[in-house]
Amino acid sequence: MLFKRYVSEGLAHYSYLIADQGQAAVIDPRRDIDVYLADAAEDQAHITLVFETHRNEDYLIGSCEIEAATGAKVFHADKQWDYQYGTPVDDGQEWMVGRLKLKAIHTPGHTPGSMSYLLHDPDGNPWVLFSGDALFSGDAGRVDLLGEDRLHEMAELLYDSIFNKILPLGDSVLLCPAHGAGSVCGAKIAERTWSTIGMERKYNPIYQVQSLQAFIERHAKMLDRPPYFRMMEKLNLEGAPVLGNLPILKPLSPKEFKELVSEAQIVDTRDMIGFGAAHIGGSLSILERILPNYAGWFLNYDQPILFVCDPDSVDGVVRTMLRLGFDDLVGYLGAGMLGWGLAGFPIESIPLVFIDAFCELMRSGSDKYLLDVRGKNEMSNGGLTHAEHIHLPELLEHLDDIPKTITVYPLCRSGSRSMLAASLLKREGWDNLAVLAGGLGAWNAYGCEFDL
Amino acid sequence: MLFKRYVSEGLAHYSYLIADQGQAAVIDPRRDIDVYLADAAEDQAHITLVFETHRNEDYLIGSCEIEAATGAKVFHADKQWDYQYGTPVDDGQEWMVGRLKLKAIHTPGHTPGSMSYLLHDPDGNPWVLFSGDALFSGDAGRVDLLGEDRLHEMAELLYDSIFNKILPLGDSVLLCPAHGAGSVCGAKIAERTWSTIGMERKYNPIYQVQSLQAFIERHAKMLDRPPYFRMMEKLNLEGAPVLGNLPILKPLSPKEFKELVSEAQIVDTRDMIGFGAAHIGGSLSILERILPNYAGWFLNYDQPILFVCDPDSVDGVVRTMLRLGFDDLVGYLGAGMLGWGLAGFPIESIPLVFIDAFCELMRSGSDKYLLDVRGKNEMSNGGLTHAEHIHLPELLEHLDDIPKTITVYPLCRSGSRSMLAASLLKREGWDNLAVLAGGLGAWNAYGCEFDL
Amino acid sequence: MLFKRYVSEGLAHYSYLIADQGQAAVIDPRRDIDVYLADAAEDQAHITLVFETHRNEDYLIGSCEIEAATGAKVFHADKQWDYQYGTPVDDGQEWMVGRLKLKAIHTPGHTPGSMSYLLHDPDGNPWVLFSGDALFSGDAGRVDLLGEDRLHEMAELLYDSIFNKILPLGDSVLLCPAHGAGSVCGAKIAERTWSTIGMERKYNPIYQVQSLQAFIERHAKMLDRPPYFRMMEKLNLEGAPVLGNLPILKPLSPKEFKELVSEAQIVDTRDMIGFGAAHIGGSLSILERILPNYAGWFLNYDQPILFVCDPDSVDGVVRTMLRLGFDDLVGYLGAGMLGWGLAGFPIESIPLVFIDAFCELMRSGSDKYLLDVRGKNEMSNGGLTHAEHIHLPELLEHLDDIPKTITVYPLCRSGSRSMLAASLLKREGWDNLAVLAGGLGAWNAYGCEFDL
Amino acid sequence: MLFKRYVSEGLAHYSYLIADQGQAAVIDPRRDIDVYLADAAEDQAHITLVFETHRNEDYLIGSCEIEAATGAKVFHADKQWDYQYGTPVDDGQEWMVGRLKLKAIHTPGHTPGSMSYLLHDPDGNPWVLFSGDALFSGDAGRVDLLGEDRLHEMAELLYDSIFNKILPLGDSVLLCPAHGAGSVCGAKIAERTWSTIGMERKYNPIYQVQSLQAFIERHAKMLDRPPYFRMMEKLNLEGAPVLGNLPILKPLSPKEFKELVSEAQIVDTRDMIGFGAAHIGGSLSILERILPNYAGWFLNYDQPILFVCDPDSVDGVVRTMLRLGFDDLVGYLGAGMLGWGLAGFPIESIPLVFIDAFCELMRSGSDKYLLDVRGKNEMSNGGLTHAEHIHLPELLEHLDDIPKTITVYPLCRSGSRSMLAASLLKREGWDNLAVLAGGLGAWNAYGCEFDL
Repeated sequence: MLFKRYVSEGLAHYSYLIADQGQAAVIDPRRDIDVYLADAAEDQAHITLVFETHRNEDYLIGSCEIEAATGAKVFHADKQWDYQYGTPVDDGQEWMVGRLKLKAIHTPGHTPGSMSYLLHDPDGNPWVLFSGDALFSGDAGRVDLLGEDRLHEMAELLYDSIFNKILPLGDSVLLCPAHGAGSVCGAKIAERTWSTIGMERKYNPIYQVQSLQAFIERHAKMLDRPPYFRMMEKLNLEGAPVLGNLPILKPLSPKEFKELVSEAQIVDTRDMIGFGAAHIGGSLSILERILPNYAGWFLNYDQPILFVCDPDSVDGVVRTMLRLGFDDLVGYLGAGMLGWGLAGFPIESIPLVFIDAFCELMRSGSDKYLLDVRGKNEMSNGGLTHAEHIHLPELLEHLDDIPKTITVYPLCRSGSRSMLAASLLKREGWDNLAVLAGGLGAWNAYGCEFDL
Repeated sequence: MLFKRYVSEGLAHYSYLIADQGQAAVIDPRRDIDVYLADAAEDQAHITLVFETHRNEDYLIGSCEIEAATGAKVFHADKQWDYQYGTPVDDGQEWMVGRLKLKAIHTPGHTPGSMSYLLHDPDGNPWVLFSGDALFSGDAGRVDLLGEDRLHEMAELLYDSIFNKILPLGDSVLLCPAHGAGSVCGAKIAERTWSTIGMERKYNPIYQVQSLQAFIERHAKMLDRPPYFRMMEKLNLEGAPVLGNLPILKPLSPKEFKELVSEAQIVDTRDMIGFGAAHIGGSLSILERILPNYAGWFLNYDQPILFVCDPDSVDGVVRTMLRLGFDDLVGYLGAGMLGWGLAGFPIESIPLVFIDAFCELMRSGSDKYLLDVRGKNEMSNGGLTHAEHIHLPELLEHLDDIPKTITVYPLCRSGSRSMLAASLLKREGWDNLAVLAGGLGAWNAYGCEFDL
Repeated sequence: MLFKRYVSEGLAHYSYLIADQGQAAVIDPRRDIDVYLADAAEDQAHITLVFETHRNEDYLIGSCEIEAATGAKVFHADKQWDYQYGTPVDDGQEWMVGRLKLKAIHTPGHTPGSMSYLLHDPDGNPWVLFSGDALFSGDAGRVDLLGEDRLHEMAELLYDSIFNKILPLGDSVLLCPAHGAGSVCGAKIAERTWSTIGMERKYNPIYQVQSLQAFIERHAKMLDRPPYFRMMEKLNLEGAPVLGNLPILKPLSPKEFKELVSEAQIVDTRDMIGFGAAHIGGSLSILERILPNYAGWFLNYDQPILFVCDPDSVDGVVRTMLRLGFDDLVGYLGAGMLGWGLAGFPIESIPLVFIDAFCELMRSGSDKYLLDVRGKNEMSNGGLTHAEHIHLPELLEHLDDIPKTITVYPLCRSGSRSMLAASLLKREGWDNLAVLAGGLGAWNAYGCEFDL
Repeated sequence: MLFKRYVSEGLAHYSYLIADQGQAAVIDPRRDIDVYLADAAEDQAHITLVFETHRNEDYLIGSCEIEAATGAKVFHADKQWDYQYGTPVDDGQEWMVGRLKLKAIHTPGHTPGSMSYLLHDPDGNPWVLFSGDALFSGDAGRVDLLGEDRLHEMAELLYDSIFNKILPLGDSVLLCPAHGAGSVCGAKIAERTWSTIGMERKYNPIYQVQSLQAFIERHAKMLDRPPYFRMMEKLNLEGAPVLGNLPILKPLSPKEFKELVSEAQIVDTRDMIGFGAAHIGGSLSILERILPNYAGWFLNYDQPILFVCDPDSVDGVVRTMLRLGFDDLVGYLGAGMLGWGLAGFPIESIPLVFIDAFCELMRSGSDKYLLDVRGKNEMSNGGLTHAEHIHLPELLEHLDDIPKTITVYPLCRSGSRSMLAASLLKREGWDNLAVLAGGLGAWNAYGCEFDL
């Protein structure tokens, strides 16, 4: 018997493979399915079933990919929606994977048809709840996806799901949600990578509310909604295009790359230090680690994409992009920025400011614009009194508020999002930019007596 | 943060790596430690702590190996015993691994000083209990290791540990024991690979007893004790010899192999079909899958060991042997039995009987000796009325009961242990042997009307 | 710069990847192209060119597969034939791969349009000759593929190619042919895995002939022609079907397998010992190592194929079959013969005879039919006086010569081909069969005074 | 049979594994021997012989490491020297590895006892010459290692070796030297990765000389001699310390790292862009790719070494250091420079200048010091008229020539060595430094009309 979890870093997406006696099933597969195929094969099992907990909005689900590779039957939730693949699931429906029983439990709220699946152990005891985006470790799924009009309705549904359907399963059942800490699908998912319904009952703030009313007040909120969600929602109904193989990201010579620059989006995944020091004009700085979180905010599906990245990170970058449905990946700068420079092509930079100089600058009272791009929930960690706050995802909508004549200092925890903000502003025409190396973390750690 | 389990197949031994913020700890490491080192390195963590839940008897613990490779500090339980390495643990002692707190809980019974370790999540909530051999999924640790004299005493200690120390931790805590299904350290460990204290409270038969007295009656039993336990107990106090590298198992030519045969033990890990058809005289048939379970019963630590095995299985075979402390591994027959035959060297065989012929034989009433080598707990799955029962581990003590003049048919579920029994008997001088291909499984499935 | 050779075991097929300054080319790719893609990517090169030395007859070329994955341009030889893909090559045509020049040299004889490609080093000096099937290490390509009518014509062409086009390139040029020792494309290819034109001039028997006439006498011969050649020739003109991904070989339960047996071909790749002892009725014994050599002789393209094989060998088996164009691979017996037996399904066997018993048998003068299935060129290694010779590939055409009433003992060097012969005969209705473990090798090594 | 070459990047060191019939031999192994062990095991061969072509000066040979792991017998050349391990080789001595004959040929010149080994193919024909540092592709070994006094003597020996011992082996023999392009052991080794004696005869400039006198004039020169050579020479006589396992490079937190900085050497292997933008005070910039070439020039064996490097490059960095005998490797900055900054620790920088600004600067006539650190043989590729030349290895001996009051611009082909030079100067107290991104390559490609 096999029971295994797969973490898609960045998206903090969890998928699961279970196998017994030669049969296997995947819950909420991602689109790069090689891992499931390899592990099932090693366990001498064939994937015959795929389960979706809901129509996902934050990544492209790999159900059709597995179906194409194995002939597995795909079951999806949200049966009232118009899927172009698979079979809808009924509340209470059951399947066997070898000796393992799976039972669907309708747990709406995140979406109207969201399903959880209760896995039983080989002896038939309730064992694991695949809760999708209904219940997370430390949080519950967002209820704002159908819009403000249906916010309360969905919150009520979710309340009913997590209090009246999940909680009664008992403290001892393992909780296996579709996301872990870091996902945009929950505001405050805990770092407890494995959890139980009992731990959630005790430690999850969402379970500490005393009434439906209190739940709604706490949880019925409109959250950030990256623009790529719409594409995911569309494709997850149509069925994601089948890839067959993971595509090859082509290494491009500086000359080849340069010829493509004008019509493409350029993503530079190197760290803020390298990007700040030297980058190609017009490129966006999106550190590989935050690429899953920001690609969907700042890239479009209409233009091809070029990458400046470490050759070792090509595989990870490609997987991230495919998971978000960005399939038009043209290539990467094979020789890196060193090769670009060696070819005599123009290089641009955004100054890094180190913490001691920055501290001096703060004391000096010189003209500057401090732009804090962190989210609201991070503000409690401290910040600079005089900073303006524009949450990074909303930056492009607030360009008018940002001066061009004095130096703009984007700020965040470590500097990575600051550099992304700076690269966005630069692309939009700002020249006067600088980034604090180490961000507010450095500020805090350095102990500048000023402010804060 | 990283929390990962490692399964040593066959021994069904579970070890664990936890890491946070650059620090890592291993609980009950095995001796081939490369996996821990690689995963810690990938997580950019350094192993600084090793915890033993008890002085193990069924495998050689890798604490000293990790200490030698990383400088980690080793903590062991059973402080009253005379360890030659590491530092004893106190009940209630606490450590931090990054933000993760570990707390020792004295849970005696399996051994007098057995420790469990309660891991807290990054937010400080009780999260995971590393219960060692105190509590398993579906069973509890054996209490017979100190001998029959102390059987009741140890059972009482264990009762107190699992009812009064573990149960109060609450249903929702994850249970991470030192063994899973298949281990000799628990008679009936469940296949539920991940469990919680609540699931054990509800489904583990051991928790269904109504009193200490009932517990003792049920659990205070002397179990099989493979002879290698003594060596493990000794070396786990002295500290296992440090290997440095995984040793290389040398491929031997038929000629080289032949020259070593007389002074060595020969282990043939090929399947019963291959072994039955052709093997080297004097070799024992121990299928790779059951090698961890039977090597310790039938091999000694005084003679070097030679292997006949598939080249692909060399790595697994070496790891298994090292985990059991068999370090004198001379080599394997590089060219396999085909090469041995091609060299014109003598080949022996033990006839396979297929189920239809066997069924005919049963009907015929001819003279034969049916030798059921299964364990007592398997008897309920059915068997042949006229079979004699000698549990495989006790075979060598009951040779006098087994006839030499009529054909002996060892029987087990699938035939693998039968072939081991046959190879043992053959080595001891029996000539008249045959093995039913597919064992009692074939008998059951074939539906012979006779008997059963 | 990268210059790498890939060996497809069994077929002894050599293919080559060269890369320089971001560009790469493959010469004579096989159909499982993952290795080229991975190595090119690691070298940060993109495959832009594929070269075929000739229309292959012994394997399916991977040109179209690479074209589909990378957009590379495919160049093929034999321009007079009707290809449905790629671009024909002209004698003398040149290409650059980074700084590396490749020049086509028309070297007909194996096929009318066969091309060799002369690779120059980064300094522009002649460096490596990719000679395809024109010249091998120790042999030259066969000239019989267009039939007996054109045998002399083709031999003359080849003579001219190797004496007047290749030899003048000079002793020091490296020779990189399309095949190594073991291929059916040359009768006696040497084991010298890397060679030079000079070594061939000195050591290759083909270069020792004194005249065209002598060459024709020596080399213009009709050789064995496996029936699958016709399919390869057809598909290598049409372009092999694009696979996209390596297909998954499905593990089948004994029950699933059994249901498919009647309509499928069953290939058992386990060794002769395992097969002889226990196999499924109707299956052919083709050891994994000889599968590339005999699949094309004894399997057809019309029936699906089932496998009994070690799980570890599944990947290799699938690759071998795809290289030969056998794409209808249904699955393998996941639980192996042990599982088959455990399910109570019927098992068959072919007796193994060990060398001592066989020697006794030879002395006894009992009725028996010794069937030597080796090739003519092996006969000089000795054999049994009373054996009949039928070369394995011709066995099915000579069934009438083989008795059914006395025991038939197929013989070969090691026993593997004997077991294949035995399994073929058994499928055709022979019951009275036995195989000598270790074959004539055992006979030679054992030193039976009798015969030989 | 197996014949495989291993390239140690950077050192451009070639080693070789040959195996036949279960036996294997390694020629000139490096110290991280895992590759040889793995490949021999896969080929089912055991390494029984190790051959050294000479007492190496540029890397630590892995002979003792293999001996410790396998029990192989080590043969070394230069028998007149005082080795503390192994057995000296005699001219003409022969060994068999399976069917492969190896014969020692005394080819002095690089060292007095240098041996080449002539490998014969399975049919007994001369096949491959392992020529050590006697003859390379495109060059011959240096003859200056015993000092200026013996320069002519050694050159005469080498002349005799390559003209009278190697050349007579014939054009067709494969040449397998101990180094490829990029090694410091030959000034101008060609990029022809595989060669033959005939190609060298024709294309190697060393063979174009017409007399011993001309050879001496051309080749008897004192070359750069990195200080670590002395340590290599010492340890290669004593036998390199046995490692057992590849050591683990410990990830250090910024705090741990900082505490060790004062007593350690810090090597930063990130690219010049990252280093220039932000680095730790006192660290040396040695790009991973050039680490094998410069570590031995600028690091000492007395202080421990700390690394700032990409986590993915840790394995490569450790191997490089071990090959050079730097065993005191303390750890690397686990969180990278981003983590260092986030911790608020001081960051330093060296300004990058981009080509357009640099071009402007050249035109401006402002005070500046252009410091060309390339080697003499690179000067023919063009440079800046007003630049001073100090070859990088000699930089520390010419500090007095370099001004501190005006900006110093180190120059090289791409900027990587410039940044190393800048980091050396900075450590020695220079403040006024800047590096041209893309180096002279950018200058050439950009087409600045000025100068050059």
